[in-house]
Amino acid sequence: MEPPCIAVEPVCWRRPALVDAVEAGGGRVGGPSEAEALVWAEPAAPDRLPEVLAAGPGIEWVQLPYAGIENLAHLLDRHHRWTCGKGVYAEPVAEHALMLALAGLRGMGSFARARHWSPPQGRNLLGSRVTVLGGGGITGSLVRLLAPWDCRITVMRRHPQSMVGVDLVVGPERLHQALGDADVVVVALALTPHTAGIIDADALGAMAPHAWLVNVGRGGHVATDDLVEALTTGTIGGAALDVTDPEPLPDRHPLWSMDNCLITPHVGNTPEMGLELLARRVAENVRRYIADEELLGPVDVDLGY
Amino acid sequence: MEPPCIAVEPVCWRRPALVDAVEAGGGRVGGPSEAEALVWAEPAAPDRLPEVLAAGPGIEWVQLPYAGIENLAHLLDRHHRWTCGKGVYAEPVAEHALMLALAGLRGMGSFARARHWSPPQGRNLLGSRVTVLGGGGITGSLVRLLAPWDCRITVMRRHPQSMVGVDLVVGPERLHQALGDADVVVVALALTPHTAGIIDADALGAMAPHAWLVNVGRGGHVATDDLVEALTTGTIGGAALDVTDPEPLPDRHPLWSMDNCLITPHVGNTPEMGLELLARRVAENVRRYIADEELLGPVDVDLGY
Repeated sequence: MEPPCIAVEPVCWRRPALVDAVEAGGGRVGGPSEAEALVWAEPAAPDRLPEVLAAGPGIEWVQLPYAGIENLAHLLDRHHRWTCGKGVYAEPVAEHALMLALAGLRGMGSFARARHWSPPQGRNLLGSRVTVLGGGGITGSLVRLLAPWDCRITVMRRHPQSMVGVDLVVGPERLHQALGDADVVVVALALTPHTAGIIDADALGAMAPHAWLVNVGRGGHVATDDLVEALTTGTIGGAALDVTDPEPLPDRHPLWSMDNCLITPHVGNTPEMGLELLARRVAENVRRYIADEELLGPVDVDLGY
Repeated sequence: MEPPCIAVEPVCWRRPALVDAVEAGGGRVGGPSEAEALVWAEPAAPDRLPEVLAAGPGIEWVQLPYAGIENLAHLLDRHHRWTCGKGVYAEPVAEHALMLALAGLRGMGSFARARHWSPPQGRNLLGSRVTVLGGGGITGSLVRLLAPWDCRITVMRRHPQSMVGVDLVVGPERLHQALGDADVVVVALALTPHTAGIIDADALGAMAPHAWLVNVGRGGHVATDDLVEALTTGTIGGAALDVTDPEPLPDRHPLWSMDNCLITPHVGNTPEMGLELLARRVAENVRRYIADEELLGPVDVDLGY
């Protein structure tokens, strides 16, 4: 049987690795006009997707490179099957979340900036209470990494079905209780109209005064001005953010100079870490496409993720 | 049966918790002159130990609060049984070591000090190669915490017997090979004449140029000037140090201003974290002492640890 023709567009530094991945999965790479599927190679250029789809009337499946697709939600349609990078980057992002939690609890915000030996401070993550917002791939990986830590883990998710390794799963109506019962709160949600701004002044007020907030979801999950206020007045212990709103965070923003705030520039998954992981997903999905098996990372067009 | 009399000296902020611990273990607290055992409560005052021992001719067992007892090695004698805090603080120190490794690999040295959004950098600990020097309690805890990380773990120790969760155990003669095969090197040794200065220019030269050095042992394990040179010339990727030589590290020392160096002020185990753990050990050892069972953390007077 002839291998299916799959387009890999646009031309960018990721493309060669994704071409290899398509071929490793059993596909043949060709132009959009002859393709029945498209692997989108450039996360930074969603606006160029419509013209490629217009040039490929035979394209029925589109593989997106993103885990979170909110920048592209307006382009989703029902003429195509959409899959995204959901879960692909979960492991490095979960590792980054755990690094941020440890660094925050153990005073790295102050210590890394000190130019002198300073008095002891810091708390153990070991045996502490961790609340994770979101029940997706990052949360699954984070729970796996936390297994030896003897933490009490609470997860808040839309449908509160139980999860392996999680002590308590609650729905959104118990958000504030889940926040209050935590030494560390990790935001690992998809950004949707239901979750935008979920960490606002009320949510921060529900947290313990020593608790740290870790955000590896999207900057828009946190009301930035409310967070600045909470960090200034000591409503919470601190915040460690890999994503911000606005992003990039502007120079001279107050968060840059707070000792109880750590910021990393959206590097939970760097492009170098991510490409290898994305290529593996593309190869697997191409194999599944050819075998007519269920594809990984299907997008629900109604939910937008 | 009358409970044995155990002295808890000197008076300090730790003493009340340790008095409680002795009583929880079944002992009776009294002065040195009537005591058959002594719990030393003040890590910062080894020099005052001889006078207390002189006042307590009936003391036959001494429980020291330290994990590393190099400051006290000259006071050890064969008239007493000595136990120390070996392994007591292993869990928080192992957590701190893992935090330092993650923070180093993931660029926190630069990111924490930045006042602007910077380009991506960082490597995964997931799936990497970790070499640990030392095979004691910290290493055991670190290996336990690393279990989900899918790392290839090598341990170098004096007697290279196999260890659960460790891929390869080697003796000191294979130090440089173990250093060369690692993305992260963690020093978790006791400080003895055999291990002092073990990380010198030759050892640093054996490491990979991207590799990070983490020291949670003692500052004296690392030849500080050699490390400054290695960090300046890029011989290694970076160093994350919870202990330094000299300690405290003086103001204006070059290590304070290097982006590829992270320093925490000996807080792997803070006094607050440690007292609770020490109290648990004291209670258990008092129980064992009364029951004539083997004591935890025995000191080998010849080896000095």
